[in-house]
Amino acid sequence: MAVKKFSNKKTISYYMCDRTHTLTLPMLVNLILEVSGEQSDELGLDEQVMEEKGYSWIILQYEFHITRFPHNKETIEIETYATEYNKLFCYRDFVVRDEEGTELIHVQSTFALFDSAKRKMARLPEDIVTPYEATFNKRVRRTPKPVEINEEKVYEQPFNVRYFDIDTNQHVNNSKYLDWTLSTLGGEFLSQHTMTYANVKFDKEVYEGKLINSSVSIDETEDHIITAHKIRTEDIINCSASFEWKKQS
Amino acid sequence: MAVKKFSNKKTISYYMCDRTHTLTLPMLVNLILEVSGEQSDELGLDEQVMEEKGYSWIILQYEFHITRFPHNKETIEIETYATEYNKLFCYRDFVVRDEEGTELIHVQSTFALFDSAKRKMARLPEDIVTPYEATFNKRVRRTPKPVEINEEKVYEQPFNVRYFDIDTNQHVNNSKYLDWTLSTLGGEFLSQHTMTYANVKFDKEVYEGKLINSSVSIDETEDHIITAHKIRTEDIINCSASFEWKKQS
Repeated sequence: MAVKKFSNKKTISYYMCDRTHTLTLPMLVNLILEVSGEQSDELGLDEQVMEEKGYSWIILQYEFHITRFPHNKETIEIETYATEYNKLFCYRDFVVRDEEGTELIHVQSTFALFDSAKRKMARLPEDIVTPYEATFNKRVRRTPKPVEINEEKVYEQPFNVRYFDIDTNQHVNNSKYLDWTLSTLGGEFLSQHTMTYANVKFDKEVYEGKLINSSVSIDETEDHIITAHKIRTEDIINCSASFEWKKQS
Repeated sequence: MAVKKFSNKKTISYYMCDRTHTLTLPMLVNLILEVSGEQSDELGLDEQVMEEKGYSWIILQYEFHITRFPHNKETIEIETYATEYNKLFCYRDFVVRDEEGTELIHVQSTFALFDSAKRKMARLPEDIVTPYEATFNKRVRRTPKPVEINEEKVYEQPFNVRYFDIDTNQHVNNSKYLDWTLSTLGGEFLSQHTMTYANVKFDKEVYEGKLINSSVSIDETEDHIITAHKIRTEDIINCSASFEWKKQS
């Protein structure tokens, strides 16, 4: 069955970029979720409708395959579509292209539905998945896990969860976890390396006012540079991630 | 003389809003500076041209007169124009209107030109101010200062300057100072009050890797609620601000 694709153009602004004049990964997450929100609006399933039904979407995992991050003032097209769903999970892809139609970034994501009353994940009901025209496949995908952190070579940094980290969904904005993981790498590493792949897995939500701990280990050989990350609150793992990098030319 | 006005429309996205579903002040600053950047681009004075000339714009002060913050998904029009300039300062206004043309926010700002080689403020040269068609007036404006903090009733919070706080201009993004001042007020205050006026004065730049101290005192009477703020690095005052609020209805 053909999937229902939705796309929209976005122009990259200076406040979405870092000192290298390219879009940051946290802002990419904001932009792709903006576009999937636009698709939901178009299909009559905006947050208000979802709230009335007693549900909200949660994101469990992202994988990013990055050829190039768009630069400041560049106009990109973000395409999104739900590919497959099963009893509990919905898989959604995002493709970011430049103005010539060349693919810059491909994102694969896993969503689930949260039942606000029962405070747990819900079975995906027909009326919520049908409009997206995704294919039902009872098989649960085995997505690759982020590379495990090397606890012997770890560097740690604390971050306070701030007022503006909470967005309209009343939860810590998804992009903030990426901000905390990446910031811990520091300016020297980040301005000398370009990300080619990212795997981000969300485990437990972080709450306002909490002090989170962001830890990282760097594994660098002649062939590859991989960084592995954990976001923890006390002893709880909130988020795991690993990134692959190349040296900036 | 008529001033050269420039305007552009922006649609408010969820990632620009806080839990109250309205645009945050830090994101408002990003959007208005995006629009003044667009005017500069149109006049052939984009950052690259300015860099080649050896200059960059710095912002010394903002005053915000706020009737209402736009809400999530609302489309606003931001108009900007340089009103006046003198030997050292350039005054620029921004007017934010809703789709019916009703004024929501009026911003008055003071800009200056920074000479990158001499590391100090420059006299405004003709070729840089003429295209904006502002009026020369040798009188330096006496803009109101932010209300002084009450050191006896102060609450303080430290913040680390993070990698993503630095934007394409290689400086801490203007909006981050507002993030630090406001975050110190905490979730309870911010979700129960709406800002009606803001006065923000930038004194000394903050640098990456520094620990800044954000302090606030709250002055609440029957008539008014005013918060006064300072951002300091060690003993240096980086930014002073004061905000007027009303209770959220």
